[in-house]
Amino acid sequence: MDNRQIILKQRPRGLPGPECFELRRTPMPQPADGQVLLQNLYLSLDPAIRGWMDDAPSYLPPIEVGAVMRGTTVARVVESRVPRFNPGDLVHGLHGWEDYSIAEDSPFLFAIPPEIDRPLTNFLSVLGPTGLTAYFGMLEVAQALPGETVLVSGAAGAVGSIAGQIATMLGCRAVGIAGGKKKCRWLTESLGFAAAIDYKSTPDITAAIREACPKGVDVYFDNVGGEILEAVLDTINVRARIVMCGSVATYNNTAPTPGPRNLWQLLVKTASLEGYLVSSYLSEWPDARLTLAQWLEEGHIEFREHIDKGLESAPVSFLRLFSGDHDGKLIVDIAGES
Amino acid sequence: MDNRQIILKQRPRGLPGPECFELRRTPMPQPADGQVLLQNLYLSLDPAIRGWMDDAPSYLPPIEVGAVMRGTTVARVVESRVPRFNPGDLVHGLHGWEDYSIAEDSPFLFAIPPEIDRPLTNFLSVLGPTGLTAYFGMLEVAQALPGETVLVSGAAGAVGSIAGQIATMLGCRAVGIAGGKKKCRWLTESLGFAAAIDYKSTPDITAAIREACPKGVDVYFDNVGGEILEAVLDTINVRARIVMCGSVATYNNTAPTPGPRNLWQLLVKTASLEGYLVSSYLSEWPDARLTLAQWLEEGHIEFREHIDKGLESAPVSFLRLFSGDHDGKLIVDIAGES
Repeated sequence: MDNRQIILKQRPRGLPGPECFELRRTPMPQPADGQVLLQNLYLSLDPAIRGWMDDAPSYLPPIEVGAVMRGTTVARVVESRVPRFNPGDLVHGLHGWEDYSIAEDSPFLFAIPPEIDRPLTNFLSVLGPTGLTAYFGMLEVAQALPGETVLVSGAAGAVGSIAGQIATMLGCRAVGIAGGKKKCRWLTESLGFAAAIDYKSTPDITAAIREACPKGVDVYFDNVGGEILEAVLDTINVRARIVMCGSVATYNNTAPTPGPRNLWQLLVKTASLEGYLVSSYLSEWPDARLTLAQWLEEGHIEFREHIDKGLESAPVSFLRLFSGDHDGKLIVDIAGES
Repeated sequence: MDNRQIILKQRPRGLPGPECFELRRTPMPQPADGQVLLQNLYLSLDPAIRGWMDDAPSYLPPIEVGAVMRGTTVARVVESRVPRFNPGDLVHGLHGWEDYSIAEDSPFLFAIPPEIDRPLTNFLSVLGPTGLTAYFGMLEVAQALPGETVLVSGAAGAVGSIAGQIATMLGCRAVGIAGGKKKCRWLTESLGFAAAIDYKSTPDITAAIREACPKGVDVYFDNVGGEILEAVLDTINVRARIVMCGSVATYNNTAPTPGPRNLWQLLVKTASLEGYLVSSYLSEWPDARLTLAQWLEEGHIEFREHIDKGLESAPVSFLRLFSGDHDGKLIVDIAGES
């Protein structure tokens, strides 16, 4: 049986169009000692992948031209040459846009915990790196306190929507920034955000933040960077914490973007800006996932998944992240199990 | 007797030239209940004063046009209507560019501790807000650890030179950035910096930092902002801490300066950028000053003072901060006691 793979054919300039990808068929890989052979069931499409497509130093090496695209998958063990896994086990980890992957045994390869009875796709959304990013960002990095105002950008996105709901659970006043009236309504009417700002129809973001956050901003959970970060810096309170979680507004820029002109406000307000990766908290993932699962059971967290079908659809599906044309965590069903 | 005052005649655009200041004579002020009348002996000239001259929101209100210039002084109590002070007591606090000031009793008005037997000017330099800024920035904000590489900009300046020496005392490898070969030699030959970078003669600051910090930068104590901050961001290590203490490179800009184009490196390295004011640690000043005084006695800290004479020289003297034409903490001797 062949293995279908989507490879990086060429590096993108700006938006990664179809010319950047190629579907390749290769022989089924064979695991060596200390490896497992996985059948990928679901693939998570995340904005961070766009960064890995550039030939620029980052927290992971760039995807090489000609190599398989990288992404988090939920997978089933087909063959195991690792003591802790058996054929049929379900795992998740950072693998490839392909039907079958070889994985080393490492702390990055997680068993799906059998005690959590949820659909497998949830381990790529609310119970996966996405939900965990919201969880550690709000609890460990921002350390949001009851009564504080927590502003979230990309608030209708997979991470932002959960981040805001966690803030509300903590007793904070969550305010979201999102693109479009429909998304904003979802934030306030379904997710418990106290207010929402539609950046697409707001000419003056700073004024809109001031209106939505009359007591100023104590925590800014930043998923987008760019101009909105600059606007927020003019509205922060003393000792504010800005969690730099993503910068989707700038990922497709073809030249480096100038940073905020008012970075100085960090000194004026003795505030902090902290870059954050969920992988820094790897050893705490299992406990955090149990907590998130409990919050789900108790009805504290609502989430959505947008599932596209077929490995071959992944390149087109990926573009949805930058057009906003999806409704929930973007996932590709590779094996046709959903 | 008259009181001579230097007032802000007009707001500067760019460098604050003589047109911005005026010497005014007013009647001697009278203290009310809860106030003291002070004779200012020495005035500290600091880059931060430049920020207060702009009509821009900051951590202190702007100096009003027509009002006395603001600055830290060491002063002698002439008349006291406050229980804790008597005529003849020596104090320091945030007062004016003037012979005599009225001060409210507040936590910002400090008695000069009699148990520290040092020249009065030292309470504006190494034992004053300058030395304390270095102290809390390195120990509390950066939390520099033995073995780490600590990069300091403005390293030959009043704050930077002490920050680097504290880093060395902590067992860090201190590297300084300063303007000119002479200053750089002082850093490495007298102050114990492991290396120094002369930014004026270095075409590629990033390359120079990489060479001087072969293990990368763990702590960056930033006194200058601007392009050097951008260069440093490309050299930081995982979990690096950037202490934003000042931004002397941008104070005289007439338009907002774009921030670093590579702010994203904070996320890549899960690093933090924290704005910092020494006034956040006010209650810890007395203990910290005793520690600094002990380090002085033990010969761990070397420092210099540049003392100009006469209140009327303050406006011209102030410009030295931006030309670099001074050799040590810049102080004006107002009362002719030195």
